[in-house]
Amino acid sequence: MSILRNLPPRVSVYEVSPRDGLQNESAHVATHAKVRLIDALVDAGLQRIEVTSFVSARWIPQLADAEEVCALTSGHTQVQRSALCPNAQGLERALRSGIGEVAVFLSASETHNRKNINKTIEQTLRAFEDVIAPAVARGMRVRGYVSTLWGCAYEDVVDPRRGLELTQELLKQGCYQVSLGDTLGVGTPLQTEKILELFLRDVAAEKLALHLHDTRGTALANALVGLQMGITTYDASVAGLGGCPYAPGAAGNLATEDLVYTLHAMGIETGIDLEKLWQAGQVAEAIVGRKLPGKVHQAGIHALKR
Amino acid sequence: MSILRNLPPRVSVYEVSPRDGLQNESAHVATHAKVRLIDALVDAGLQRIEVTSFVSARWIPQLADAEEVCALTSGHTQVQRSALCPNAQGLERALRSGIGEVAVFLSASETHNRKNINKTIEQTLRAFEDVIAPAVARGMRVRGYVSTLWGCAYEDVVDPRRGLELTQELLKQGCYQVSLGDTLGVGTPLQTEKILELFLRDVAAEKLALHLHDTRGTALANALVGLQMGITTYDASVAGLGGCPYAPGAAGNLATEDLVYTLHAMGIETGIDLEKLWQAGQVAEAIVGRKLPGKVHQAGIHALKR
Repeated sequence: MSILRNLPPRVSVYEVSPRDGLQNESAHVATHAKVRLIDALVDAGLQRIEVTSFVSARWIPQLADAEEVCALTSGHTQVQRSALCPNAQGLERALRSGIGEVAVFLSASETHNRKNINKTIEQTLRAFEDVIAPAVARGMRVRGYVSTLWGCAYEDVVDPRRGLELTQELLKQGCYQVSLGDTLGVGTPLQTEKILELFLRDVAAEKLALHLHDTRGTALANALVGLQMGITTYDASVAGLGGCPYAPGAAGNLATEDLVYTLHAMGIETGIDLEKLWQAGQVAEAIVGRKLPGKVHQAGIHALKR
Repeated sequence: MSILRNLPPRVSVYEVSPRDGLQNESAHVATHAKVRLIDALVDAGLQRIEVTSFVSARWIPQLADAEEVCALTSGHTQVQRSALCPNAQGLERALRSGIGEVAVFLSASETHNRKNINKTIEQTLRAFEDVIAPAVARGMRVRGYVSTLWGCAYEDVVDPRRGLELTQELLKQGCYQVSLGDTLGVGTPLQTEKILELFLRDVAAEKLALHLHDTRGTALANALVGLQMGITTYDASVAGLGGCPYAPGAAGNLATEDLVYTLHAMGIETGIDLEKLWQAGQVAEAIVGRKLPGKVHQAGIHALKR
């Protein structure tokens, strides 16, 4: 009897630390420090990096330097740089910045969506009509996020069928992939299986990614279920940088090092150099000036060897 | 296609924080503080607790108060209190202390065994003949540990077949259960499956437990494999207290709260009150005076609700 089945030979890691990570840090991080982090991530072999957000600086002052970050990382032509982009104004800025990909974000929970982006889900979807199709028409790739799918701090139950509808709508509007978010980090492996079972009836696995938070230590166990169900893209944040300011108690994306350590040790390729990735985690920790929670990050560079 | 299969309805948690946890703390912890921790664990519903070690105070001064700890927790007659016990002198002390269970410990790695207990594996097994059978003859239960099964800091390869032989020898000598240790916290789910596959050919699942360290964040994912393979006892340490001083870089047992949160959320019973367990974690943190690494512990009491 085999327990782990259908593990993929290769996984694509979508690195979110410069955006999802830094937008949730209270420390002021200078533009050149952000660029240093992105450079270190590129050097480690990350191929897909969300570098910033073209959201109003009034909402997220931490990412007000989006244009500079894009300009200063424009040499990384071999890497898919992405930026969060909530509306048409954001898209105009993204287009001028020269990056190849934008990402749009909504929540499967109406209340979380309103608190997070100050719009109803319907209004959000309508606003995306001015982002997704126009971006695709201008030659950009567009990625979607559907958050709070495993649970929400404001609503008792989030219906995964609602999340599926939203995912299908984002794909229909032109997203090449939708990342399913356990924003609160409440998910269990069993719940992950149930959610993915529902989604995979109607959506091809390569159109989906998992964005798991490690608030309760379950992210890697949840990813293990996703791997066996054909999901081959995982969002992660170096050293576990990040969280969600609108979801009380939610702290810490799945740490990229923990994910990559485990994948490599199971013979799954990522194209990432784990030692250089660990060094990038040191950069992340230095620029935010606080101890970051990633386990491999904390265990030290000698812990990379088995 | 079902991914998670054969999840058990109930799991037994074997709490190691008062022994494995505190023996690796440099802070001096007063006897009454240890008793406070044990009381809190009992109050949370833990049924099996390793309360101390009857090892020479020269080796582990942190646990020199073994007799007092046993005496001061003797009111917990409904709980299986256990103590580590390396040799015949230790057993005499354990017998006088009135606890019902002792545990013996060896390593699957010859070098780790020598560094840890200053004997060869063969010498260790011979010494256990003066502990296990005599303890059983006096009406005690005896539990075994086989450590470093997933990897060792001193030997490149640990042969799981050697670990299986040692496990069988411990069972033959009279242990009712052997706990298999990923002492370094290097294990992956795939490796866990392979090791358990080997063991379960010759040993009944109820004779085995898993003792997983979370050094690289993989403990819960490894436990998820064990659950599906019929392993229903998991060692854990409240708030992730503990480590292994002889295995550089190894820090942190699987946190009891993280395990119990995940089990309960998947409908698996433990008999433990998660809120009271979280409170016990606060006691653990207070008595060692440092921030402990457990994820649920760090997320806060509001994070217990889904």
